[in-house]
Amino acid sequence: MTAFQGRIGIIGSGALGAFYGARLARAGHDVHFLMRSDYEAVRDNGLFVKSFEGDFHLKANVYNSPEALGVCDLLIIGLKTTANGALPQLLAPTANADTLVLTLENGLGNEDAVAAALSHTGKGASARVLGGIAFLCSNRTAPGHIHHMDHGWIRMGEFDAPVTDRTRAIAELFVSSGIRCEVYDNLMQARWEKLVWNIAFNGLGVAAQADVGRVLATPELHSLAHDLMQEVVIAAAATGAPIDPAMPAKMLKNSESMGPYHSSMQVDFESGRPLEVESIIGEPTRRAKAAGASVPRMEMLYALVKALDQRTQ
Amino acid sequence: MTAFQGRIGIIGSGALGAFYGARLARAGHDVHFLMRSDYEAVRDNGLFVKSFEGDFHLKANVYNSPEALGVCDLLIIGLKTTANGALPQLLAPTANADTLVLTLENGLGNEDAVAAALSHTGKGASARVLGGIAFLCSNRTAPGHIHHMDHGWIRMGEFDAPVTDRTRAIAELFVSSGIRCEVYDNLMQARWEKLVWNIAFNGLGVAAQADVGRVLATPELHSLAHDLMQEVVIAAAATGAPIDPAMPAKMLKNSESMGPYHSSMQVDFESGRPLEVESIIGEPTRRAKAAGASVPRMEMLYALVKALDQRTQ
Repeated sequence: MTAFQGRIGIIGSGALGAFYGARLARAGHDVHFLMRSDYEAVRDNGLFVKSFEGDFHLKANVYNSPEALGVCDLLIIGLKTTANGALPQLLAPTANADTLVLTLENGLGNEDAVAAALSHTGKGASARVLGGIAFLCSNRTAPGHIHHMDHGWIRMGEFDAPVTDRTRAIAELFVSSGIRCEVYDNLMQARWEKLVWNIAFNGLGVAAQADVGRVLATPELHSLAHDLMQEVVIAAAATGAPIDPAMPAKMLKNSESMGPYHSSMQVDFESGRPLEVESIIGEPTRRAKAAGASVPRMEMLYALVKALDQRTQ
Repeated sequence: MTAFQGRIGIIGSGALGAFYGARLARAGHDVHFLMRSDYEAVRDNGLFVKSFEGDFHLKANVYNSPEALGVCDLLIIGLKTTANGALPQLLAPTANADTLVLTLENGLGNEDAVAAALSHTGKGASARVLGGIAFLCSNRTAPGHIHHMDHGWIRMGEFDAPVTDRTRAIAELFVSSGIRCEVYDNLMQARWEKLVWNIAFNGLGVAAQADVGRVLATPELHSLAHDLMQEVVIAAAATGAPIDPAMPAKMLKNSESMGPYHSSMQVDFESGRPLEVESIIGEPTRRAKAAGASVPRMEMLYALVKALDQRTQ
């Protein structure tokens, strides 16, 4: 399989978008970054990636407005989902009827938001949307500086169709850049699998202000995390994306090595930033209820985290 | 009915104990206060009560150790339940086999803790324990200064028996001091009724950091408060203290006049003080589960508030 060829735009060039964009550019792909706060630093000095897989520096094609970036063949979305409201303005100048869009954002509802923001490109926009789940530990440590601490692999699929050669060509973009990328026929299944961990540990990171190690070491929280994970398994099955029922026990076991890890939502909460509560907890809860699943703990977690989120705004 | 006659000791002379003790003393009853932080101020200047029912000042009999207070005929406990661990040391010098103890503390398990702390007085100590639920808005504004803002009435009963003349005589103590006091054959019923409100609004005051007005104004929190209240109704029935199933709807309606009221637990949380989580949420949840009731939201609330409590310690 040959990697996808074309002009690639990175929208949302934070710790995630800038990292993947930089790896693709280093491998010789035609990558263009849309940046806001880091624009001048990267225009003047390029991108610095400090990584456990090897540090590197990159002169980057960088733009400070979607109009300046212009139309791309592939857009990779690395926004926080709290910024999804800006998608229509971001995609209007950068996407046409031939543009593919891959969202690497967290949770549920992002492919839908991207498809809706592509309505100016004509009918069938959702057929030009792909989604991916990034398993990545990275931080933006200063303007233009990314610290890649661990992992980096991606699970990817078409929004509303099984895997095609097109999916594989985009996966090959990542593979040719040294990033493991698995393709899935049922993207929602991969998304729900990630949510088993994310709902429990992001949610309790905020509602109990407890990091992963403390959730696992506190009997009531460990038991609550397990109950929440079971509800996510039930919700996934009810919405047509069945996942392995043994996943909660496995994930709890595997998380033991993480120690006092603070989930992204806990970090955002502690920093007073808006929380990705809608995509990670709200939308999964709504879909579970619409499918008739009983998810009282997810519902309660959503109410609490949403209230705590709005408190910081 | 003649009011109870005898030497009355107030243990835990904060906003609640000092208020009731002062009202009883003003009415001519023989009241003695055990105080710690306020001891010198009250010894030198007496107690000042600012009240919507009339301000007054009182020279008080005050002691700075349970040994100095000595044996009383009736002890009124106004501690925070987080101090229940001190009950054995507090009751050893102040209670003998004839002493009655009335706990006005919040939640469940306090009569049990008092009875256990009376073991030195011989068998059948639980028959000398009474409990009361105080509906009181008061603050300690400075050493020896109490601000009584609203309400003040009490619901009271024997720990493990129906109302007797003894119960009525103690109730008359309060009535003769201008305080409404109702007696209940089933104390636990009165306690669970109060818990319908307390679990929902104290719990969400901490877990959602939302005051009463905000819980009522936020659809997800309003609905969660109702669901929690329903679980408390189910728990009460399962433990043999059935209460009116219409109580949740009534209480939510009646709370609308409270505005941005911060529950005691929310105030404690915001001040970094230990939370009465065991008596208000933990013990009710344990009793509900032991009785076979399904209370997933109470259980989750307990796990979260307990985790947040320990975080502040």
